[in-house]
Amino acid sequence: MATSPPIDKRLLEEGSVFAPQFSAEGLIPCVTIDDRSGEVLMVAHMNGEALDKTLSTGIVHYWSRSRQALWRKGDTSGQVQSLVELRVDCDQDVLLARVKVGGDGGACHTGRRSCFYRRVEAAPSGPRLLPV
Amino acid sequence: MATSPPIDKRLLEEGSVFAPQFSAEGLIPCVTIDDRSGEVLMVAHMNGEALDKTLSTGIVHYWSRSRQALWRKGDTSGQVQSLVELRVDCDQDVLLARVKVGGDGGACHTGRRSCFYRRVEAAPSGPRLLPV
Repeated sequence: MATSPPIDKRLLEEGSVFAPQFSAEGLIPCVTIDDRSGEVLMVAHMNGEALDKTLSTGIVHYWSRSRQALWRKGDTSGQVQSLVELRVDCDQDVLLARVKVGGDGGACHTGRRSCFYRRVEAAPSGPRLLPV
Repeated sequence: MATSPPIDKRLLEEGSVFAPQFSAEGLIPCVTIDDRSGEVLMVAHMNGEALDKTLSTGIVHYWSRSRQALWRKGDTSGQVQSLVELRVDCDQDVLLARVKVGGDGGACHTGRRSCFYRRVEAAPSGPRLLPV
């Protein structure tokens, strides 16, 4: 998919036209948060097809960059994400999905609920990671 | 800046080594949330210098892709972001910054508190944006 066509900046920021700005690779990042807690669960990418399917089915789809394939989250894990609300940011190059998570309620392939399970801690030898 | 050097997947996901995975453009996206409410305020990018300065000063720095310059958020708006906690995701290619916002407490250049001020609503003629 090509980069999104140019659109007037004011229309992009203040208008009611949904004009998602895909990257040169045809992708737009999506921040996914838990409906109940508001916690950030994960960040992944959508292409046009994933976005269309998310909106038409109410089930969140992504584009897997590692597998180069459409990815209906939860197909193997059961952690299906039901879309509660989709937002877009000011310049329409990031999405924010509020979801109810099926299965065990988690989102990370490592088994954690959220992908953000480590914090960066300053140390004399340089920053290190600690569990949160 | 070149892409980050390869690192073992298990070390990346389970280790304590902070090995941020910069893109080919030398950037890593950062989701920034409000310390008190947990609300997602914005998503921007950091390069190595912005990340280093964020960690060494405790004030969040980004890389402005439009201006191609280091960007100490709040320098002109007063909306300085004091870092409370920095997290990294499982594969270390996204950052999550929890911040206290100075000035009027906002983060968006349009004057809103959050950049995510519109939701995508299905409509017969295609998706439209509505204020939240």
